[in-house]
Amino acid sequence: MAPSASPLLLPLISLFSLIFTAAVSQSTIQLPTAASHHQDGAVAYDDKVFCDSWRLSVETNNAGDLASNKPLRCRQYVEDYMTGIGIQADSDMLAYAALAYAKTVDIAGDGKDAWVFDLDETLLTNLPYFRDYEFGYKTVNLTVYFDWVEMAVAPAFPASLKLYNELKELGFALIIISGRGEGQRSATERNLVNAGFTGWDRLLFGEKADTGLQMRELKSKKRLQLVKEGYRLHANYSHQWCSLVGEAMATKSFKFPNPMYYVP
Amino acid sequence: MAPSASPLLLPLISLFSLIFTAAVSQSTIQLPTAASHHQDGAVAYDDKVFCDSWRLSVETNNAGDLASNKPLRCRQYVEDYMTGIGIQADSDMLAYAALAYAKTVDIAGDGKDAWVFDLDETLLTNLPYFRDYEFGYKTVNLTVYFDWVEMAVAPAFPASLKLYNELKELGFALIIISGRGEGQRSATERNLVNAGFTGWDRLLFGEKADTGLQMRELKSKKRLQLVKEGYRLHANYSHQWCSLVGEAMATKSFKFPNPMYYVP
Repeated sequence: MAPSASPLLLPLISLFSLIFTAAVSQSTIQLPTAASHHQDGAVAYDDKVFCDSWRLSVETNNAGDLASNKPLRCRQYVEDYMTGIGIQADSDMLAYAALAYAKTVDIAGDGKDAWVFDLDETLLTNLPYFRDYEFGYKTVNLTVYFDWVEMAVAPAFPASLKLYNELKELGFALIIISGRGEGQRSATERNLVNAGFTGWDRLLFGEKADTGLQMRELKSKKRLQLVKEGYRLHANYSHQWCSLVGEAMATKSFKFPNPMYYVP
Repeated sequence: MAPSASPLLLPLISLFSLIFTAAVSQSTIQLPTAASHHQDGAVAYDDKVFCDSWRLSVETNNAGDLASNKPLRCRQYVEDYMTGIGIQADSDMLAYAALAYAKTVDIAGDGKDAWVFDLDETLLTNLPYFRDYEFGYKTVNLTVYFDWVEMAVAPAFPASLKLYNELKELGFALIIISGRGEGQRSATERNLVNAGFTGWDRLLFGEKADTGLQMRELKSKKRLQLVKEGYRLHANYSHQWCSLVGEAMATKSFKFPNPMYYVP
């Protein structure tokens, strides 16, 4: 029998490899400019126009392969978006729409009116880590990532923290479903508190029994479990479509922006 | 018994009122700037940044009420987007992603591998009509709209026409499901041909029996009918989320951009 990794570590790696499938990929391709697909062939799109269109296609889940195989010409664009006013304004707008929706929900008072949040790149941002990996354009180092998680210093997205607290005030049961592994619970809880998040109802991770599940299956399984426990899933708030669709979908899905990486 | 409109006209008006619920609405609101929702309150977004975020929230179906109650400050932005490079680049990118997906589909050769298209604001653009109604900001006149439809001169979206022909070449059964009424069949067929579309497999309209259905229900009903007829719905291509979700969803949905109006 070949030497094997620790049985505790295996599911974690398995889960994380899912998260980072896209970011790890080195096969970023240079797209032909969209202009070459244009009927009259006469329209030349500059990088800003092209990358705006590319990002929209990712956010609407239209992009297909272009979601993970990010166009090389959008490298600077993604950095500018993630470090500038782009994601700030988009996450503010999203939180605004989400709060407006939240206020239309009748809260029964039995603690079962749930709002599901994703963790990474939704409540917390790993931007300080991704800076070293060209915002998703350079193959990430998982060992370094595990160390980063243990440091528990990922900042909150300001708009998400504000929304989180507003939802708590409204009486929602706040449920966080993370693609991280159960082994990171302690560091993650510390990180959440460091970043200002408190009072969650449930914090769910990938468990040993989830090994081998695709992210979509993992998230569906956790939601099904919540529904069985009597939770009413009014909303789901995530940076990945695979965490929004599938089984036991929430009544309303909110797609948080993330052009850095894509999970199939 | 009160005098009633012609029984033929009623379902049409009913259907069109659905289409134009959003555009007709005069209750466009002036949003507080997103900055006022920002945690530190210090970020002031200019119109371009704000309206980019607003449009993204519409296209991702996050916007809620803001999809139909368009922010007044985005009036010029919507016009610029619809008449400039914005929608051109976005529709090119979408067609590029759609064609890449189409090429992965195995075509059985029995004529049942279907690609569903929406009609208005997807294959055809009513932009010449909407110019007179401030691109969705001014209440539309339905009588004028009916006349416009009868003129049969709505242009094709170039990217959609190119994609349509490429899909035909690949062997897809091209199916158009329109929210228009059966009474507009003749004008619509003329318009499609005028704009360069030929060789569709099916062209479905709202029928008398569909009176009172919401757009989502209408589109679901038509798709269910197609599935019963043995069609495999590989893709659905529409400018409205209500035409993409519901029953008998296609394997893959493509959201065509449309910031002018929203159908609930």
